[in-house]
Amino acid sequence: MNTNSDFRFPERVANIRRIVEDSEFDGIMITNSENRRYLSGFIGSAGMLFITETHAKLVTDFRYTEQAEIQSPGFDVVRMQGRASEWFPPMLAELGVDKLGFEADEMTVASLKTFTETVDASDVAIEFVPTTGHTVKLRAIKDVDELKMLQRVIDVGDAAFEETAAKLRRGMTENEAAWEFEKSIRERGAESLSFPTIVASGPNAARPHHQTGDRAIRECETIVFDCGAQMDGYCSDLTRTVVLGTPDDEIVRVYNLVLAAQEAAIAGVKPGMTGEEADGIAREVITEAGHGDDFGHSMGHGLGLEVHEEPHVGPRADNVLEVGMPFTIEPGVYIQGWGGVRIEDVVVLEQDGVRLLSHADKVRY
Amino acid sequence: MNTNSDFRFPERVANIRRIVEDSEFDGIMITNSENRRYLSGFIGSAGMLFITETHAKLVTDFRYTEQAEIQSPGFDVVRMQGRASEWFPPMLAELGVDKLGFEADEMTVASLKTFTETVDASDVAIEFVPTTGHTVKLRAIKDVDELKMLQRVIDVGDAAFEETAAKLRRGMTENEAAWEFEKSIRERGAESLSFPTIVASGPNAARPHHQTGDRAIRECETIVFDCGAQMDGYCSDLTRTVVLGTPDDEIVRVYNLVLAAQEAAIAGVKPGMTGEEADGIAREVITEAGHGDDFGHSMGHGLGLEVHEEPHVGPRADNVLEVGMPFTIEPGVYIQGWGGVRIEDVVVLEQDGVRLLSHADKVRY
Repeated sequence: MNTNSDFRFPERVANIRRIVEDSEFDGIMITNSENRRYLSGFIGSAGMLFITETHAKLVTDFRYTEQAEIQSPGFDVVRMQGRASEWFPPMLAELGVDKLGFEADEMTVASLKTFTETVDASDVAIEFVPTTGHTVKLRAIKDVDELKMLQRVIDVGDAAFEETAAKLRRGMTENEAAWEFEKSIRERGAESLSFPTIVASGPNAARPHHQTGDRAIRECETIVFDCGAQMDGYCSDLTRTVVLGTPDDEIVRVYNLVLAAQEAAIAGVKPGMTGEEADGIAREVITEAGHGDDFGHSMGHGLGLEVHEEPHVGPRADNVLEVGMPFTIEPGVYIQGWGGVRIEDVVVLEQDGVRLLSHADKVRY
Repeated sequence: MNTNSDFRFPERVANIRRIVEDSEFDGIMITNSENRRYLSGFIGSAGMLFITETHAKLVTDFRYTEQAEIQSPGFDVVRMQGRASEWFPPMLAELGVDKLGFEADEMTVASLKTFTETVDASDVAIEFVPTTGHTVKLRAIKDVDELKMLQRVIDVGDAAFEETAAKLRRGMTENEAAWEFEKSIRERGAESLSFPTIVASGPNAARPHHQTGDRAIRECETIVFDCGAQMDGYCSDLTRTVVLGTPDDEIVRVYNLVLAAQEAAIAGVKPGMTGEEADGIAREVITEAGHGDDFGHSMGHGLGLEVHEEPHVGPRADNVLEVGMPFTIEPGVYIQGWGGVRIEDVVVLEQDGVRLLSHADKVRY
């Protein structure tokens, strides 16, 4: 038995306990690694949480029991030994759970079968209840500690981008440029990239999800540089469009259009809007200039322990944007055969509108 | 309709078609990314294969359709658009599948529910049949092309380790040493690490799965350096135990014991043995020296597109080791409070025994 104050993140556990209280299940099993980390602070690569209104257990294997005890105060650490039949039914009996919620978008069919058969062969009776989305919804609004960690990794990403951009030269390949960014974030203390860096140059820039390759970058073409770092688990995500040498009129025209769309969204997004309404601000600017069909992705996305998480900020996104939600604002225009421009910053929503968290220089020519 | 010769890997598709022929299902859905790559050659991050005795489809989203057509000849590329109801039932009808096998250890409960509901709401009737292990079993035996790619990445890993080992100095942290290795493999063309590098120094070396940290390495202690690269999808995995300065008698004794155990296994493993019998060769040497309880992990594991894959090479591993299977041989001795020694090479099993694929220098003091 434990109270919420025993935990490293008491409010997060209190929130999930409220969800358990209001649901049809009387305990929840968390197997998604980011959700596990968010609720418990445990960062080992294997483990499961079992949370009821009065109990909380963290099950992991011999490699991580010591670490789990240090990282996750409040949780009763259970060492997973042998077959599921040896630890799973007795633990459920101890928790007093009759209906166990599980993350249906994380649990495989084979794992559920193992757990179900294990319970069926034991003398405890448990009903497994599929659930989705509870913890990821909580994660959309960040607390003060999370915003600090987010700012820290964004600062690292910004500085690494600035350092890399200053090194870009005609003839350097996309892969070489991406590797300069990665070295820089790692040497600044990041754990890893938050996603494979996209360096899309010239005609490659027409593909928003271009796979960075061996093309040598040139002067007077757009180079879309989309990059992020991960640190303390939190992700940054930044896009700048760079031009070496002197841009021609067409580059300047498209660049300024995307910039205007981004600035309109930064000025216009307010708490209480849906993701679709926010998206519409940038989309309208681009559509009015005749490029509506060239902006084929969402205006943004939430980010935190994952580089894409709630809220959705795009067409058909009906989630409401609330104070404390960080997300990206990243309109783009992509023209087959010519190239593309995308400009992306991370903002956090406050009472009066958005506050920019990323600060890397914007105009790069 | 296609014949096996249409494919990039005709034998692999023929093998999976034989499995379909011999099974209760008349088509198989492949969602595991390594299995997908193995069978089709497609390396995008999202996609599914549907293989029957006469048809083969690769379903992916707009980001990857062009790439899929280039990488996966023989497969009919289907662009996934809108909801599953729009493409899934018509595609199954075209395939003529009544019973569809799916990878139960990969498919989530939520995804299966979506597919099932989509089919139920349509006018096609499909039974979903959970399966596991078919493709991973095929993957255990490597073909000539795979062995070439494996050798290539192992050579990169060996060279990067040698370069890193030459840079190790008293006072360097475990993290700094790991980063030197990572930079080296990347600059030699590897895509990524095959797993987070383990640099476990002094007392940390007593934990086989130590999380590399900020401890500064010292002289006269064991430094277990376990590292791997990934290139063309294939993984290397190498462990060397390094000592800076002059090792004391205890280090020399334990080192020579582990080396003797490893050499015994390299000399003794033959085709037809089970994983357990192979494991027993090294284990016996260590047990006879009184350190049986200090060797708490398997002697080895298969590797390929994943750094741990079939065959199992440890206690209770009843799979038979066959010609063409690469795996690691990595006995170790771990003593709480003192440190540990592990020595790991990759071998491939041939008619007369194993052939070493890794060649990094062994004695490092």
